[in-house]
Amino acid sequence: MMIEPEEAWKRIMAEISPLPPHRFALEEVAGRVLAEDVRAEADHPPFAASTVDGWAVVAEDPSRQRRILNGEGWAGEMPDVTVAPGTAARVMTGAPLPPGADAVVMIEDSAVEGEFVRFTRAVRPGENVRPAGSDLAAGQLVLATGTALGPAEIGLLATVGRSEVWAYPFPRVAILSTGDEVVEPWETPGPAQIRDSNRYALMAAVREAGGAPISLGIIPDQPEALRAKIEGALDQADVLITSGGVSEGERDHIGPLLAELGTVYFNRVRQKPGKPLTFAAVRGKPCFALPGNPVSALVSFELYVRPALRRMAGHTRLRRPEMPVRLRHPLRPDPVRTEFVRAVVERDGDQWWARTTGAQASSRLLSMLGANALLRVPPGPDLPEGAIVTAILIAWPEDH
Amino acid sequence: MMIEPEEAWKRIMAEISPLPPHRFALEEVAGRVLAEDVRAEADHPPFAASTVDGWAVVAEDPSRQRRILNGEGWAGEMPDVTVAPGTAARVMTGAPLPPGADAVVMIEDSAVEGEFVRFTRAVRPGENVRPAGSDLAAGQLVLATGTALGPAEIGLLATVGRSEVWAYPFPRVAILSTGDEVVEPWETPGPAQIRDSNRYALMAAVREAGGAPISLGIIPDQPEALRAKIEGALDQADVLITSGGVSEGERDHIGPLLAELGTVYFNRVRQKPGKPLTFAAVRGKPCFALPGNPVSALVSFELYVRPALRRMAGHTRLRRPEMPVRLRHPLRPDPVRTEFVRAVVERDGDQWWARTTGAQASSRLLSMLGANALLRVPPGPDLPEGAIVTAILIAWPEDH
Repeated sequence: MMIEPEEAWKRIMAEISPLPPHRFALEEVAGRVLAEDVRAEADHPPFAASTVDGWAVVAEDPSRQRRILNGEGWAGEMPDVTVAPGTAARVMTGAPLPPGADAVVMIEDSAVEGEFVRFTRAVRPGENVRPAGSDLAAGQLVLATGTALGPAEIGLLATVGRSEVWAYPFPRVAILSTGDEVVEPWETPGPAQIRDSNRYALMAAVREAGGAPISLGIIPDQPEALRAKIEGALDQADVLITSGGVSEGERDHIGPLLAELGTVYFNRVRQKPGKPLTFAAVRGKPCFALPGNPVSALVSFELYVRPALRRMAGHTRLRRPEMPVRLRHPLRPDPVRTEFVRAVVERDGDQWWARTTGAQASSRLLSMLGANALLRVPPGPDLPEGAIVTAILIAWPEDH
Repeated sequence: MMIEPEEAWKRIMAEISPLPPHRFALEEVAGRVLAEDVRAEADHPPFAASTVDGWAVVAEDPSRQRRILNGEGWAGEMPDVTVAPGTAARVMTGAPLPPGADAVVMIEDSAVEGEFVRFTRAVRPGENVRPAGSDLAAGQLVLATGTALGPAEIGLLATVGRSEVWAYPFPRVAILSTGDEVVEPWETPGPAQIRDSNRYALMAAVREAGGAPISLGIIPDQPEALRAKIEGALDQADVLITSGGVSEGERDHIGPLLAELGTVYFNRVRQKPGKPLTFAAVRGKPCFALPGNPVSALVSFELYVRPALRRMAGHTRLRRPEMPVRLRHPLRPDPVRTEFVRAVVERDGDQWWARTTGAQASSRLLSMLGANALLRVPPGPDLPEGAIVTAILIAWPEDH
């Protein structure tokens, strides 16, 4: 049941679909994906407005002089005057155009002479006017189903009066660690024990991926305890992630248990790190049994679990962006497995360069620090400095 | 008090410093910035471990045959045998090396013959062994103060037993909208009224920038109501953001009030959109009065408020990444102001291209949709297709 990484991706995606949408208040939709088409309920702006401080006039009047009407147009107030040829009304930026007017002359292009104002240049119809419906026309599709909701999208929802919308929920993700040798971070490990780093790292990774983590603690190597915990977890969660208990040398209780409770689709991927990855479904809920090595767990999460969570959350763009980069130094591919090498990608003029983050042991979390890319390196001959490989961009370093 | 964008940045940054650190539990640190140096409290792994399934041996023994010792080494168990020259003990991947052993022969390179095992090749000292301290050495600096805490960093904290760490809090950001003409999204605007989109958009933007938004609602154009609200807000928040009430044509109560309560550093920036931006400090807390136009508010937030919030949260990389891109079409710069043009940046081979998102009216939120960059276009002659401009990358589109 050892399969290639691309095949693993396909089998996972074949089993995963978006969660049923809910109705959410506007304050709760940030980061969610819209599950309905949203149209403008009216013209925006609902009225023609001035884009400058100036004089509202009838443009077809060829005279450069107008009689000043009483009243001043402020934003938020409907004008109480009607402009006819021969007259002008003062308007401020953003204020509605008074009835009759079809253009605004900038204050800089005018001079007041008693009851009259004189313009220093000719007026064009529509000048300095934002027509009704020029931002959004009534009935226009504003946001389509599948749109990820960020600040601008949320502003648009508010603009068209949608204080509630249908959107996809964040998947709830139960996370547990397994192994008699695993203890909590605040405990002092006994001989041959190690602290549980994976559960905490995966909780943060789930949150970054737009999921809601539920921590289930550490389960010792007792099949019955494990079964009870997993069945309970699937009552409250949409996804299960375990780590540990699937590598060679560990007592694998997880694989047989998942096979008994549901369907196991594969349990080995021809990749490095992350070979011992089990993907199963129990009661229709996806279960990922990740390796216990911390780097293997996080790389597997990145490649398989994150896209799955995004799909459940309604996203259609599931994968990270990829781009070709040049190696700063030679690299020896693994003879049989596709390797995902932690690397720092940097731009130098038009060229993008990658250097690895040092020793790539799958236990060495330090190799993840500062990495902004995974280089996908298939088996093959040695790669010289300058060779082109594909970088999967997992972060983008910010400038200063 | 009209200043250039770079000068606005400098004046803001001169007034802003990181918030006082707190002590946080490991479950609460995702996305925060570390406020202490963290060192390894012990060697990791604490014991030499096998990296393969195989036979633990003394390498200097030149014989290819060893007598098999009882006992099998599993991950999580300390071995109960001592290996001497002439003997071998079975070990599994990840298991501690038994005392005496200094190398492991892979199972694939061996054949069991009764009480003995025979190796098909010679043994090198240290082969297939992960030495104690090879991932982290006791006392080694693991994470430096100023490190942003993502999944790998959190895994490292757990590994070295830090279930609590000093980190910077997320800034609490009070957000209010001003204006008699502004109503809530669920209300039907009267004549000349508009719905409040900015507060909801800014709440999402604050969350994305790593802040904790506090909504203060809509304040009508009454100076006393506004003063009471702002003073109350600064009791519970680290930062104040207002929108509206500072553009020409709006009744500006905010500027005079901030000047009365504290210090106003500037109130106009020579840029488009976002010219009417007021930056002030009241009781040592930064206050940003953003324009009421939705695009102006979000662009100002992106350029000035987001970096300020990041600095308060302890980040040292404050700005988005920037890169040179080529224009897909001609562009006419503003004659006097630096323009920040919403655009989509795409890669085509080695070249990165930008196209704008259509009409750039500062009221038109649609111009933000799908934009992954702001092009910084200083005043100057018309730019032809293919001209190079600087893109500020505000998002990176994911591949399919």
